[in-house]
Amino acid sequence: MQLIKTTKDFAGTDILSLQQFTPQSLKKLFSVTAKMKIIAKSAKPSDILKGNIVTLIFYEPSSRTFGSFAAAVKQLGGQTIEIQNPQQFSSVAKGETLTDTIKVFEAYSDAIVIRHPEIGAAQKAAEAAFFVPIINAGDGVGEHPTQALLDLFTIYEHTGTLDGLTGVVAGDLLNGRTVHSLIRGLSLYSRNTLYLLSPGRLRLTRADFSLFAKSGVKLVEIAGEKDIPKDADFWYWTRVQKERFGDIAEYEKVKDSFIVTPKTLADYAGRKTILMHPLPRIGEITAAVDNDVRAVYLRSQIRNGMYVRMALLALILGKIH
Amino acid sequence: MQLIKTTKDFAGTDILSLQQFTPQSLKKLFSVTAKMKIIAKSAKPSDILKGNIVTLIFYEPSSRTFGSFAAAVKQLGGQTIEIQNPQQFSSVAKGETLTDTIKVFEAYSDAIVIRHPEIGAAQKAAEAAFFVPIINAGDGVGEHPTQALLDLFTIYEHTGTLDGLTGVVAGDLLNGRTVHSLIRGLSLYSRNTLYLLSPGRLRLTRADFSLFAKSGVKLVEIAGEKDIPKDADFWYWTRVQKERFGDIAEYEKVKDSFIVTPKTLADYAGRKTILMHPLPRIGEITAAVDNDVRAVYLRSQIRNGMYVRMALLALILGKIH
Amino acid sequence: MQLIKTTKDFAGTDILSLQQFTPQSLKKLFSVTAKMKIIAKSAKPSDILKGNIVTLIFYEPSSRTFGSFAAAVKQLGGQTIEIQNPQQFSSVAKGETLTDTIKVFEAYSDAIVIRHPEIGAAQKAAEAAFFVPIINAGDGVGEHPTQALLDLFTIYEHTGTLDGLTGVVAGDLLNGRTVHSLIRGLSLYSRNTLYLLSPGRLRLTRADFSLFAKSGVKLVEIAGEKDIPKDADFWYWTRVQKERFGDIAEYEKVKDSFIVTPKTLADYAGRKTILMHPLPRIGEITAAVDNDVRAVYLRSQIRNGMYVRMALLALILGKIH
Repeated sequence: MQLIKTTKDFAGTDILSLQQFTPQSLKKLFSVTAKMKIIAKSAKPSDILKGNIVTLIFYEPSSRTFGSFAAAVKQLGGQTIEIQNPQQFSSVAKGETLTDTIKVFEAYSDAIVIRHPEIGAAQKAAEAAFFVPIINAGDGVGEHPTQALLDLFTIYEHTGTLDGLTGVVAGDLLNGRTVHSLIRGLSLYSRNTLYLLSPGRLRLTRADFSLFAKSGVKLVEIAGEKDIPKDADFWYWTRVQKERFGDIAEYEKVKDSFIVTPKTLADYAGRKTILMHPLPRIGEITAAVDNDVRAVYLRSQIRNGMYVRMALLALILGKIH
Repeated sequence: MQLIKTTKDFAGTDILSLQQFTPQSLKKLFSVTAKMKIIAKSAKPSDILKGNIVTLIFYEPSSRTFGSFAAAVKQLGGQTIEIQNPQQFSSVAKGETLTDTIKVFEAYSDAIVIRHPEIGAAQKAAEAAFFVPIINAGDGVGEHPTQALLDLFTIYEHTGTLDGLTGVVAGDLLNGRTVHSLIRGLSLYSRNTLYLLSPGRLRLTRADFSLFAKSGVKLVEIAGEKDIPKDADFWYWTRVQKERFGDIAEYEKVKDSFIVTPKTLADYAGRKTILMHPLPRIGEITAAVDNDVRAVYLRSQIRNGMYVRMALLALILGKIH
Repeated sequence: MQLIKTTKDFAGTDILSLQQFTPQSLKKLFSVTAKMKIIAKSAKPSDILKGNIVTLIFYEPSSRTFGSFAAAVKQLGGQTIEIQNPQQFSSVAKGETLTDTIKVFEAYSDAIVIRHPEIGAAQKAAEAAFFVPIINAGDGVGEHPTQALLDLFTIYEHTGTLDGLTGVVAGDLLNGRTVHSLIRGLSLYSRNTLYLLSPGRLRLTRADFSLFAKSGVKLVEIAGEKDIPKDADFWYWTRVQKERFGDIAEYEKVKDSFIVTPKTLADYAGRKTILMHPLPRIGEITAAVDNDVRAVYLRSQIRNGMYVRMALLALILGKIH
């Protein structure tokens, strides 16, 4: 897994993990992302990826991530080969290895985006592909770097910086992959403070807490909404799943503290706080919140995902330097 | 649901129901449809939708309608994001609302075509989408406006008018959505007469009969093929499903009256009568009829579906005025 | 099924079987295929199929063949309509005939590629389509002509000829469709010798043996690797499936003779022998062999499949003469 330090490091590089990025390469990526936003909103079609073919191979369906990558390729005038659930297809069903499958699709395309339920699958795909770069679109409980990148870009676009921020991270912090990635991303920068709000049994493990704290982000566990600092730069909300509780009574007791309503925003958010969510949202933010200008989960956060993916594709395919 | 009266009403408008149309807007649509036919048949590729992305989200598979919309977008140089059976995909499977799913795909595309098994789903999608128009590609027993539009265009192309026509509508008139739409469409015009041929238990309800009769179309129920008027402008045939009969003996008694053979055409159709069918056809028109020049169901009717969809897309995306 | 003898015979012709080809038309096809390789490797996008729509209708999933055809269309700037498993779609599920389905998709596209589990399905599709050519992408135990063509092209590209070759064909020769096609293809040329290596119960039937021998290829059945002639031009390896053996002990006894390892190559292959496999490969060639320069199955053989399909599409759509 290659560390991306300078601009020229993007071309041909597999994007497997947020850990490949440095503040310098993130700055470059986000500057290209901002340009992509202009291209996507422009009436003039882009031909940046004209003649390029990107394979989207999804061993596990994800309509949102799939659609976002497909749109990113097509916004730039490229084309896709779309393979969904290849494990139900004959070759893979017959027992073909992931390595062979990737080598086959490498012959057809200029880049491969892979989603897979097993941790490490993207890394394995990257080892199989000699000639074309791989993008990890989520490998089980492993990494989902483009989600982390779009979250960081959304905060960056809003605040103009990734240093010295105050954020609230709420919900299932024990299992939440997106939350862990966000903390890791912010730890690349200085003087960030995160307030952690979760049911007792869904707190960060003590090992993760120490690890993240050591990495440079200040972490503060809080007991309820009333401890949320006024004027946080962002709230990052995630779901508390009933299934995680052995005891339903315990779930019933806490669940209302993890539902954002207009009143929650009115009572605890600042005027400029943005409310983020990785989606899908199943009820932990009520629909009445959607039209609040601070709610970005169904608006800029989704769009930013497409822009960040456009930027990554253009960079790793060497179309932008 | 916005009524489309003038040309400029098309741009940005959701297409949810045949009831949005007026004779004036149908005239505009059909004139653009005729141009689309020329574009589709031309060797020169069109770039009318170049740079445009249309999401096709089909909660219920329909290979014919799906293929027709995909071809319509691509004939005009546009691109698609294709999502089939999202209810099996993770976000929707996890319980994401239709509203949230539509808001996500709205961020990726310039228009959304939705097919859904539940009545009202397209209307709901239109309420969810702030920025892009929705096209209803069928919502259960609700509406399927592009089917109705292609039927009307096929008749119009053949006869040069939608006034003063004589048609025969046969088969299951009780449950047939396409038949009801056709009657409704023709009721926008003057002096049309429809002869209705169906088994007794599959007649229009008396309520529907009154409603349609009041709307301006003259309806005449007939008892058998021998009552078909010579020289009808069109026959619109639909299927009589065995499952609709409680008593199989009753089905066996009537079924042969609802199968079109070359003899049926020879005996009862005029020289210029066209034979239409919404497809799929499972045996109610025998294969021997296919090569009759009057049989348009596998030829111009299918192609017209693509042309009408091209015209609608170009109009609602503001590419043609 | 039309025999393709001259260049002009390609335009508009269905590609259903290897048996349509002559040495003359193969020479033309392979010369266009070589050009397609240059186009695919060029940075400059091709517009040879711009404005053309090709329907890929796969009644049986095959990720490799599907991806190869999709890439072939898109490499040439064309677009696809992709229909997977239409038998689960409403029209076909309701009982629509293959004939009607093909007539529908013919209305939307300039060519149709069909994969179907039943022998004869492609022929049936070709009879249904009046206006557009059909390409058979495999019809059950029937034909899979583009696989045979890519195999022949791979040998031709390597040796510069299809006359006077020595090859080894190994594995399941009783059931192997690709093997039978390869023998048939080589029988169009002169002085070819094939050494056949298979377990006793998976030998060619005596009828097939006589038939192929009479067609002009010299066939020599051998008992084990030690009988492989030094300096064969190619080895064509296929899988020996456990399920084909009634008696597992018998399978265990022979299976190791049908696994290619680096030692097998070192002991029996020539310096210029190429090792081919139709894929998927499930273990009958070990991964350690992959990096041997003579192993072409995951490299040029796969790519050649895309180039041959590009050439066929350009030829039958009349874009190259």
